Order: sequence, then structure tokens, then C-alpha cells
Amino acid sequence: MRQAPANTARPAPVSVLGLGAMGGQLARALLAAGHPTTVWNRTPAKADALVAQGARRARTVADAVAASPLAIVCVLNGEVVHRILEPVGAALSGKALVNLTSDTPERNRRAAAWAAEHGIAYLGGAMLMPPTLVGRPEATILYSGSRRAHAEHEATLKALAGRAPYLGPDAGTATAYDVALLSLYYAGLAGMVNAFALAGGEGIPAQDLAPHLDVILGQFPSVAVSMARDIDAGRYSGEADVLAIHTAGLAHIIETSRSHGINTDVLRAVKGLVDRAIAAGYGDAEFAGVIEEMRA
Amino acid sequence: MRQAPANTARPAPVSVLGLGAMGGQLARALLAAGHPTTVWNRTPAKADALVAQGARRARTVADAVAASPLAIVCVLNGEVVHRILEPVGAALSGKALVNLTSDTPERNRRAAAWAAEHGIAYLGGAMLMPPTLVGRPEATILYSGSRRAHAEHEATLKALAGRAPYLGPDAGTATAYDVALLSLYYAGLAGMVNAFALAGGEGIPAQDLAPHLDVILGQFPSVAVSMARDIDAGRYSGEADVLAIHTAGLAHIIETSRSHGINTDVLRAVKGLVDRAIAAGYGDAEFAGVIEEMRA
Ligand SMILES: NC(=O)c1ccc[n+]([C@@H]2O[C@H](COP(=O)([O-])OP(=O)(O)OC[C@H]3O[C@@H](n4cnc5c(N)ncnc54)[C@H](OP(=O)(O)O)[C@@H]3O)[C@@H](O)[C@H]2O)c1
Ligand SMILES: NC(=O)c1ccc[n+]([C@@H]2O[C@H](COP(=O)([O-])OP(=O)(O)OC[C@H]3O[C@@H](n4cnc5c(N)ncnc54)[C@H](OP(=O)(O)O)[C@@H]3O)[C@@H](O)[C@H]2O)c1
Repeated sequence: MRQAPANTARPAPVSVLGLGAMGGQLARALLAAGHPTTVWNRTPAKADALVAQGARRARTVADAVAASPLAIVCVLNGEVVHRILEPVGAALSGKALVNLTSDTPERNRRAAAWAAEHGIAYLGGAMLMPPTLVGRPEATILYSGSRRAHAEHEATLKALAGRAPYLGPDAGTATAYDVALLSLYYAGLAGMVNAFALAGGEGIPAQDLAPHLDVILGQFPSVAVSMARDIDAGRYSGEADVLAIHTAGLAHIIETSRSHGINTDVLRAVKGLVDRAIAAGYGDAEFAGVIEEMRA
Repeated sequence: MRQAPANTARPAPVSVLGLGAMGGQLARALLAAGHPTTVWNRTPAKADALVAQGARRARTVADAVAASPLAIVCVLNGEVVHRILEPVGAALSGKALVNLTSDTPERNRRAAAWAAEHGIAYLGGAMLMPPTLVGRPEATILYSGSRRAHAEHEATLKALAGRAPYLGPDAGTATAYDVALLSLYYAGLAGMVNAFALAGGEGIPAQDLAPHLDVILGQFPSVAVSMARDIDAGRYSGEADVLAIHTAGLAHIIETSRSHGINTDVLRAVKGLVDRAIAAGYGDAEFAGVIEEMRA
């Protein structure tokens, strides 16, 4: 009888530091995949439910990092990561550290430099999903930094999110993708709230508008592809969908928003960029031409 | 031999006023569907190609509206619509007028009131597509105003866009949906440009980032549905994806943008709304809670 080695490999021990909305789900996903899981959280009570599901409770950060060859940290921000891990640099030596805390690319690079000084294999990660999708095959976490750590722990990382691409040796790259993607995420969410607020001002329930949003949302993927091509080529020549038309559309939205007392900050910021791009000679450009103003 | 009546009905005559990027495509789509099409444009040369394809050229607006029971107007803005049509109110009496010019709901209502005074059946319309999709079955134009005009000319309207829903008797409703949808459209486009600018600042080509945008764009439809439900219910209680976490994410984007000299106006406007919502007690709310600040 033959056995596939992947099936016989025992899930490796992992320690999870930080059991907030995301960290708690990460630990849960590891337990579900059969990993011996050690957990630590500043407020210990957040570990109780996980311990009841089979996790081992670490009383201190040092205790937690000693328990496994891989530590995953997911806390509020990079400052907290630093505060927690700085005292245990020596204890992490020779181990892998995966930082799933959202931060700037620059601070991830500094954390990687600190890790390198201590002989820690560091991976910066960016979780592109809400807590409800942690552990799912369609969820994505981007990684960059130590190639060896990614290769060695890939099975474990895939228990956290089925899509776990490695983007390169610069520990800041995953976060660079993250901040770029989040800028689209937050602008889009603000646009949705704006749309619902405007509809409400006109007496249209949000749920009446919602099905129609698909007309817009359905255009975004192909717009993104052509925008990317234009931006890389530095060519924004439009024929139809030009900035001179967009500024008029934005003016209508802003006028209608004002008439209903709806905040216009976001759309005025967009219109400001469009208008400055027009003034700079991009009136005949497609929307992508705004990037020249965005960078200026 | 039996014949389906729909196939035997001759396409009705239509006049198109305004032959810009959109108007030109509207006329082209009507010609393609076999409608006797009369065209007018301020700059007559823009009619030449259409005339070569079988359109009839009108020398004046009065000439154009006299030629057909249905006139479609698609020009720069509502002011131009008014300037063009005001002198021919009497000539349009008893006919249908479809206004596909983007405008505010309020000015569409005023145009409808003017039309009613002259016995004109008025439909306000909102084209939710770029010129390249005019005439396609998957394209959408929303209509509101005269129910009779919509019913009577439905076949013609479907030649312009396969999806041509009638949203009610208020001539401003279609435009109300339009400004709401456009607010999402422009915020989303600005978010994309921001994402590409940030990636560029980090040395990542736009086309490397583009495939990853789908992770974000793919979440928007379900976010919109749950956001609409929360907003109609006035309940924004989050468990995980809360404003207190979002403000930290926005701070990272803004900090990274600044480090690359990328404009932060749009994201600071979003963060301002989030922070004011937190200050107003919505820190534990999901992003939808920002609507309370948007309306304030
Ligand atoms: N929520 C999402 O949808 C989402 C999605 C993608 C990425 N992220 C990122 O994931 C990270 C965690 O987010 P989350 O939603 O899990 O946040 P959260 O629920 O607010 O949890 C924050 C965690 O940080 C810990 N913490 C805060 N300050 C601390 C300190 N001074 N010392 C020690 N621990 C401290 C908290 O411990 P206590 O329990 O003791 O307070 C808790 O474990 C963030 O960087 C966030 O941007 C979140
Ligand atoms: N382009 C899009 O992707 C798109 C999508 C949806 C909705 N829309 C809306 O559709 C409408 C038309 O857009 P478009 O892209 O076709 O614009 P466009 O290509 O700029 O065409 C503008 C039209 O308005 C005419 N016009 C401007 N000022 C005039 C005046 N004072 N008197 C008479 N005619 C005048 C122009 O005539 P001349 O040729 O003589 O200048 C031309 O026919 C706008 O309301 C726009 O917001 C556009």
C-alpha cells in the first residue's frame, strides 16, 4: 500500500500572538487543520474559547514563542508588534516569524531588519479578507520576505487562507500590495455609502438601489485592466470617456448631494484631482490621466 | 404561413439631437436597428458619417423634431438641453421627448414640468455605460417619467440599450439613481488610480497589481448587499470589521502615500468621515456606520 507523504506529514506546531477578531480566527483555522496551537493574548480571557477547543495557553510571550518553530503575530499595529517581540528576539532565533499585522511597507522592512539581526526568518503578510473568511480556500494572504520560511511553512500558511502567494524577498512587498489594494477598498466603500446616502436623500431605500450597483461594480474589473495598461504605457488618450465629461458628472453629484445636505468631501477631493488634471492639459484624457495629478 | 407581429412592425422614425461621443453612438444603434433616423448637431460635420450610413440630416432643431414622433436629446448638460429645446416646445407638442443628457434629478423634474406645459411626453434617462456599449443587449439605460412614452417606444429604447427599465412617474428618479451610481463609480475610479499610484511608488508596475485588485473588487457586491440591509435597518453593529480598525488601515495608506509624494486628498476625506463617525460613538460600527456622518 502506498501513502502520499503530504497526507502522513503531521501538522506542525504553531504559536499565535494576538487573539482579536483576526488572530482568534487564525488560531481557530489552525486548530481545525489539526495543528498543535499555542495561543497568547494581552487580555487572557480571549483565549478561553480556543483553549476549550484544544489550544494550549501561553502565559507569556516568551512562553508562546518557545512552544513552536513558527510564530504568527496579528495585533493592532506595528508598534504593538515591536513592543511584544523586542524582548524575545533571542528566543525567536532560528525560528520563523510571520507578521500578519497591517502596517506600512517601511515598518515591515524595519521589522525584517530587526529579525535578520536575531537570525529570525521573517515573512510580512497581508490578509485580504474579513475574519469570516479566514481558513477558507478562496481567502487570500499575500506574503513576502524569507523565501525559505514561506516554502517550509506553506502547508500551515494555506490553512489560514487557501491562496498564499509569495511575492518576493523584500518583506515590504506584501504590505505594499496591501496598502495599494486597501486604498481601492476604502475609496469603494466610501463610494457605496455616498451612493446610499444620495439615494436616501431622494427617497430611494438602499435596498432598492443595491441591485443596480452591479452595473457599476461589473464594469470595474475591465476598467482596472485597461487603466493599468494605460498607466504603465503613460498614455491616457481617451476618445469618449474623457475628464472634461467626468468633471460635469461630478458637479451633478456634488450639487445633488448638497441639496440633500450630504457630505461632499470625498467627491470634491475626486473632482479636485480631475479639475487639476484638466488644467494641466489632460482634458482629453481618460480617467487614468488623473494619476499624473495624483503623483504631482 | 404565420408571421410574428413583432417582426412585421416597422421600426419607428426617431430624431437624435446631439452627436457627441454618446449621441453619435445612439444614432448609429438606431440606424443598425433599421429606424429611419434624423440627426442634428451644433457642429454639422459630426453628422457626415451618419448621413453616409443612411441618416437624414436636419439643418435646424425645429426641422429635427418635426421629422419624428420621438426625439432623443443627448448633449453636454441640462443648460444646453434647455437652450436647444425651449424654442421648439410647440413643435414637440403631442410627441415624446427622451432626455439622455446627464443632469441633476431636480433639473430633470423642471424639464418635465416644462414638457408637461407643452403637452410633451417626457422621459428622463440615465445611460449607465460608456459609448462602446451603446446598442448592446447588456447595456443599461434607466428611465422615469411618462409611463406611456416608455411603453409606446420600448422597442426603440431597447435598440439603444438592451436593459431599459422604467423606474416610475417622477422624471427625476432615473437621474437620482444615476447620481447615486456615479458617486460609487467615481470614488471607485479614484481608488483604482490611488492603488496604481501607490504601487508605482513602491516600484510595482500597474499591471502587476491589476490581477490582485480582483480580490477587492470581488468583495464589493456582497459588501453592497449587506451594507444596504444595515443602512435600511439603521443598524451598523460590527463584530470584526469595525471603524476603529479601518481608521488604522487608512492611516497606513496615507502615511505610505505621503512617503512617496502621492496625493492624499481622497483618502483623507474618507478618513475624516471615519474619524468623525468614531468620535460620534460609531467606533464599534461596520463601515456602513459612516452614513450617519455622511448625512450630518
Ligand atoms: N478585522 C479585519 O477585517 C481585518 C482584515 C484584514 C487585516 N486586519 C488587520 O489585522 C490586525 C488585527 O485586526 P483585528 O481585527 O484582529 O483587531 P482587533 O479585534 O481589534 O484585535 C486587536 C488585537 O491587538 C491586541 N492589542 C492591542 N493593543 C495591544 C497592546 N498594547 N499590547 C498587546 N496586544 C495589544 C489586542 O489585544 P486585547 O484583546 O488585549 O485588546 C487584540 O488581540 C490589524 O492590523 C488589522 O488591520 C483586520
Ligand atoms: N461619454 C460617456 O462615457 C458618457 C456615459 C454616460 C453618460 N454620458 C452623458 O452623455 C452626455 C453627452 O456626453 P458625450 O460623451 O456625448 O459628450 P461630448 O462627446 O462632449 O458631446 C457633447 C455634445 O453636446 C453638444 N453641445 C455642447 N455644447 C453645446 C451647445 N452650447 N449647443 C449645442 N450643442 C452643444 C456637442 O455639440 P458639438 O459637437 O457642436 O460640440 C456634442 O454634440 C453628457 O451629459 C454625458 O454626461 C456620457
